[in-house]
Amino acid sequence: MIKVAVVGATGYTGEELVDCLHKHPEAEITSLSALVDKEAPFSEMFPRFRKKVDITCENLDVDKVANVCDMVFLALPHTVSMKFAPKFIEKGKKVIDLSADYRLPSTVYEEWYGVKHMDKEHLVDAVYGLPELNRAAIKDSMLIANPGCYPTSVILALLPVAGMIREAGIAPIVDSKSGATGAGRKASIPLAFGEVDENLKCYKANEHQHMPEMEHVLSLASGGDVKVNFVPHLLPIRRGIMSTIYMPGKGLSPAKKLIELYNDVYDNEPFVRIRPEGELPQILDVAGTNFCDIGIKVAGGMVIIVSVIDNLLKGASGQAVQNMNIMSGFNEKAGLL
Amino acid sequence: MIKVAVVGATGYTGEELVDCLHKHPEAEITSLSALVDKEAPFSEMFPRFRKKVDITCENLDVDKVANVCDMVFLALPHTVSMKFAPKFIEKGKKVIDLSADYRLPSTVYEEWYGVKHMDKEHLVDAVYGLPELNRAAIKDSMLIANPGCYPTSVILALLPVAGMIREAGIAPIVDSKSGATGAGRKASIPLAFGEVDENLKCYKANEHQHMPEMEHVLSLASGGDVKVNFVPHLLPIRRGIMSTIYMPGKGLSPAKKLIELYNDVYDNEPFVRIRPEGELPQILDVAGTNFCDIGIKVAGGMVIIVSVIDNLLKGASGQAVQNMNIMSGFNEKAGLL
Amino acid sequence: MIKVAVVGATGYTGEELVDCLHKHPEAEITSLSALVDKEAPFSEMFPRFRKKVDITCENLDVDKVANVCDMVFLALPHTVSMKFAPKFIEKGKKVIDLSADYRLPSTVYEEWYGVKHMDKEHLVDAVYGLPELNRAAIKDSMLIANPGCYPTSVILALLPVAGMIREAGIAPIVDSKSGATGAGRKASIPLAFGEVDENLKCYKANEHQHMPEMEHVLSLASGGDVKVNFVPHLLPIRRGIMSTIYMPGKGLSPAKKLIELYNDVYDNEPFVRIRPEGELPQILDVAGTNFCDIGIKVAGGMVIIVSVIDNLLKGASGQAVQNMNIMSGFNEKAGLL
Amino acid sequence: MIKVAVVGATGYTGEELVDCLHKHPEAEITSLSALVDKEAPFSEMFPRFRKKVDITCENLDVDKVANVCDMVFLALPHTVSMKFAPKFIEKGKKVIDLSADYRLPSTVYEEWYGVKHMDKEHLVDAVYGLPELNRAAIKDSMLIANPGCYPTSVILALLPVAGMIREAGIAPIVDSKSGATGAGRKASIPLAFGEVDENLKCYKANEHQHMPEMEHVLSLASGGDVKVNFVPHLLPIRRGIMSTIYMPGKGLSPAKKLIELYNDVYDNEPFVRIRPEGELPQILDVAGTNFCDIGIKVAGGMVIIVSVIDNLLKGASGQAVQNMNIMSGFNEKAGLL
Repeated sequence: MIKVAVVGATGYTGEELVDCLHKHPEAEITSLSALVDKEAPFSEMFPRFRKKVDITCENLDVDKVANVCDMVFLALPHTVSMKFAPKFIEKGKKVIDLSADYRLPSTVYEEWYGVKHMDKEHLVDAVYGLPELNRAAIKDSMLIANPGCYPTSVILALLPVAGMIREAGIAPIVDSKSGATGAGRKASIPLAFGEVDENLKCYKANEHQHMPEMEHVLSLASGGDVKVNFVPHLLPIRRGIMSTIYMPGKGLSPAKKLIELYNDVYDNEPFVRIRPEGELPQILDVAGTNFCDIGIKVAGGMVIIVSVIDNLLKGASGQAVQNMNIMSGFNEKAGLL
Repeated sequence: MIKVAVVGATGYTGEELVDCLHKHPEAEITSLSALVDKEAPFSEMFPRFRKKVDITCENLDVDKVANVCDMVFLALPHTVSMKFAPKFIEKGKKVIDLSADYRLPSTVYEEWYGVKHMDKEHLVDAVYGLPELNRAAIKDSMLIANPGCYPTSVILALLPVAGMIREAGIAPIVDSKSGATGAGRKASIPLAFGEVDENLKCYKANEHQHMPEMEHVLSLASGGDVKVNFVPHLLPIRRGIMSTIYMPGKGLSPAKKLIELYNDVYDNEPFVRIRPEGELPQILDVAGTNFCDIGIKVAGGMVIIVSVIDNLLKGASGQAVQNMNIMSGFNEKAGLL
Repeated sequence: MIKVAVVGATGYTGEELVDCLHKHPEAEITSLSALVDKEAPFSEMFPRFRKKVDITCENLDVDKVANVCDMVFLALPHTVSMKFAPKFIEKGKKVIDLSADYRLPSTVYEEWYGVKHMDKEHLVDAVYGLPELNRAAIKDSMLIANPGCYPTSVILALLPVAGMIREAGIAPIVDSKSGATGAGRKASIPLAFGEVDENLKCYKANEHQHMPEMEHVLSLASGGDVKVNFVPHLLPIRRGIMSTIYMPGKGLSPAKKLIELYNDVYDNEPFVRIRPEGELPQILDVAGTNFCDIGIKVAGGMVIIVSVIDNLLKGASGQAVQNMNIMSGFNEKAGLL
Repeated sequence: MIKVAVVGATGYTGEELVDCLHKHPEAEITSLSALVDKEAPFSEMFPRFRKKVDITCENLDVDKVANVCDMVFLALPHTVSMKFAPKFIEKGKKVIDLSADYRLPSTVYEEWYGVKHMDKEHLVDAVYGLPELNRAAIKDSMLIANPGCYPTSVILALLPVAGMIREAGIAPIVDSKSGATGAGRKASIPLAFGEVDENLKCYKANEHQHMPEMEHVLSLASGGDVKVNFVPHLLPIRRGIMSTIYMPGKGLSPAKKLIELYNDVYDNEPFVRIRPEGELPQILDVAGTNFCDIGIKVAGGMVIIVSVIDNLLKGASGQAVQNMNIMSGFNEKAGLL
């Protein structure tokens, strides 16, 4: 049994974390905190947790939280996490950070997030928490940089061919579509129901801050420079991401070989599923689960890869719990059925 | 040709007004205003109006607006309208006010809206702008109190039997469901897509401020005291209201007679349609139109009336244009096809 | 460990059953069947079950199914269940039937479903599977009539006052709203996305076949005749039901007493949650869970009760698993976290 | 005043045509037909047309229809149109065909639609009804092949650079997303609300039958061979298409020049609107209108073009009415405000 704290429990990812951890057979939630006007039982703030999670959600007091837990999940906005992560680490607590603060080299981070990095000390030791890439390092880490939602869907779809595309000089075109919870729980006109429903919106085309994250991780994995073109869209659904990825067939293996390769890479992965050749996954196949489903089709000289995840689970809180499982020696699927 | 101004053009009802007036063969929009950070062409603020409505949306300057128009639509929050309506009237401009400020006697208004009424002078002469009830008075009025969205759907459904229910002492039960644009364009967590989508929410049960509006109008129409029980719900759709109304059959006429009565009352109305006995309308039948569709079914000893409107059209801006048509001697359907 | 079979696995409730049973720590799915063109692994028919449920979904062969399981879930259309339930019972298998076939006395069934009942023999011993009402009888039963979705939401909301409303002669008005999966997975124009999205539709007003189920169960529970007026609506959401229930305050206890009463009745129930006075639940509070949330408000002389469930879980498959848990002596919440 | 007939009036495009034509100041609907079980007033089949379009929708009788109209709209499935178009043309009636039957050379048609073309005689004279490309030819044509919905969104977005991409040997990548009415009004499980809502689905990737239509038209326009990669997705919205188009910047003009070029080409077009550099349109900007909005952004070395239309209007029925206006010498915007 592990004692866990969720800091930032009132956002969409925080809430989802609480849900996963509550169902987890080996975890006990001992602390919930967030910036709140009035401290109150979590089940009072979110009645869906009545008869489930009744402990009080308090304003953050690092000492108090550290005293009652073994591991801390930070579901905070970027730039905020790096203020608190060091404090928990110094008290010997393992930290899984869901923000972007520990995912990138400081120079890249500062360029794309427009702020100084304030915890370069721990940044160098942080492990990028994509189990399919870094399982061994995750096991022994004190600080996990939990991947971004878009990057998870794209990196898993490109990892097996990262070397090939680097060698062939291919910069994949990634057309992603995400549900609205990906933007967080916010009072904002562009996120209002009347603006999102029955709409589709393309934003930050080829200049979204998740693009350098994809490039950084794929470059490391391939041992060279990988570039992607990344264009996200806002979908009128609550949860789910689809990334449709385009690459010229030239330079890549033929379809059957590709499928074999992907199956080889992911066969033993508990949360990645490869479809038979030509069959493409849809968002409802993974909504509410921690799976990433990937389909590959070669047609008209193009390789088309479709990757889907639930942005709140494999794209955030589910993956964080998967990381906790690895760090704690639990069954990797615990709490994530 | 009439010159019209829209004050409060950037909300959902303001935008809808601009759309109707732009299509109107006899109206010319000469002024758009709202509380804006930066004055700009309306088509720049709302690109859906490019190549359609290019005039600049400015911060409100009463003199300037009055100089260029014959009639003013106030699409403002309640308590704000009553500050500006008198100024336009004093300058000889006709006013159609879409807020609640001129719909109720001041005592009732003050009780339900929690503020002092600041323009009792004009309140007494304001005409409640429900054409099916007050067409003659609307024609000659300087100040129209455009009805609320829920009240429009409910009053039209009950007008023909208002006398009967008063006499029988029946307080109808009104279960209403409204699309999210009814709450206005606002930065607010409860109106965020992630909170409204795939949800249904009951709010202000039997204490919504539209309830006294229904009771006041139905009481006047029936020559006595009418009470209703009104419970609204927030639907995950952009536009449309359905009111399902329940009354005991005792005290009312049998189904066939009721349908005959409703047909008699509404046959010549351009925007009310009565269904054959037992057939009930759905929201898509009226979405995007100025119609109110009403169906009546008697079953299990109950009279069940279902009434649907588009909350932004017959429930707000369409009805406002219908009132303008009546006041100006235009074809009542102009701009509302 | 119990071996279970799902007959009718390819509908929405069948699929949801498979999901719950797969997560269940004490159940093993040993057989899946349905009317299929081509027998195939379930994970091939529904890729969301890949790496989860790979057994083949076959056309029904009663002997074969009975040989491999201890308990059978029938997720079949009404009139079909009563053909197969007797066969499984005769082979000593316990049956949980999700259709309407064993919920009503044969005379009522025949009147409302328009067909002869073909298994009166077992009908008399069937137990209505609402744990909050019949837990003890469920424990020892061979045949469970799993309640309808609308009736579950309404009966749980009215059980504590069933005696009071019978005595006071109150026939509650029940305005229900259901997500589209409640109608099953069907090729049908009225259920097409283009007809349901952005719409709301009232159907079978006061003559839906779930009404006699509510009346029958509430009458038995209150020791007399209870009548309800039941009007369902089709919501543009995938899952969830809200029932808004109206009763005159006269004849019922005051609000505080009512809340106390409901808390007394349901305090120890694992899947019913009562809100504090005046607070009403919304569908997202229970979507994806087996909970029924109930709120009570007294206003304007009316008692208004709002009850919400997930139609596929507490309204069907979740409740079926809850019944299995009771029949098998498992923790009642197993598989339903 | 022109007398018009709609054949196939009961599908989504048929219904939308009736709506546009009803609003049209110069058109009179004299005949509606479709494959119907029972002939009935259109307003009875679709109550949203009550007090608007009351004429009877009959089973098709070519002679009868031809006797009462000057122009015929065929809103029929492909392969069916080519059976009827010749009959109307032989009777001297102008035909606007919304199917794919007259859009492609017969060899291409037969390859992609898998059937023999049965009216090659008229095929050679048919004019592809994209006003922005063929206005002069449309004016004098007897038979219009109304463009497909996806092709309209893509061809308008690429026309100004068709020559450049041909010369540079660029095959644009087109990632399109369409609302569910694009698939027609059908009883089909994949189109059921429970399958489409909260989902996103990629289908017929790089092998959709609209791809050769795009290539054919762009090739003709550029005087050479143009190839595109086209991948459509099904969106959980009722109406609207977005096409996100990717091309390498090399070989194309810089951003400012491109915007100037697009503005030059489309400035006088009543229904195409170009956004300022870097600003991209969203679906709600055009839903319910006949506009095509196009935005261009150059970033990371890519030219990204986003084009949006309403699939039922500019993508089908609105464009058909625009063609009628051109053929009849009406204001091109008549009926399409």
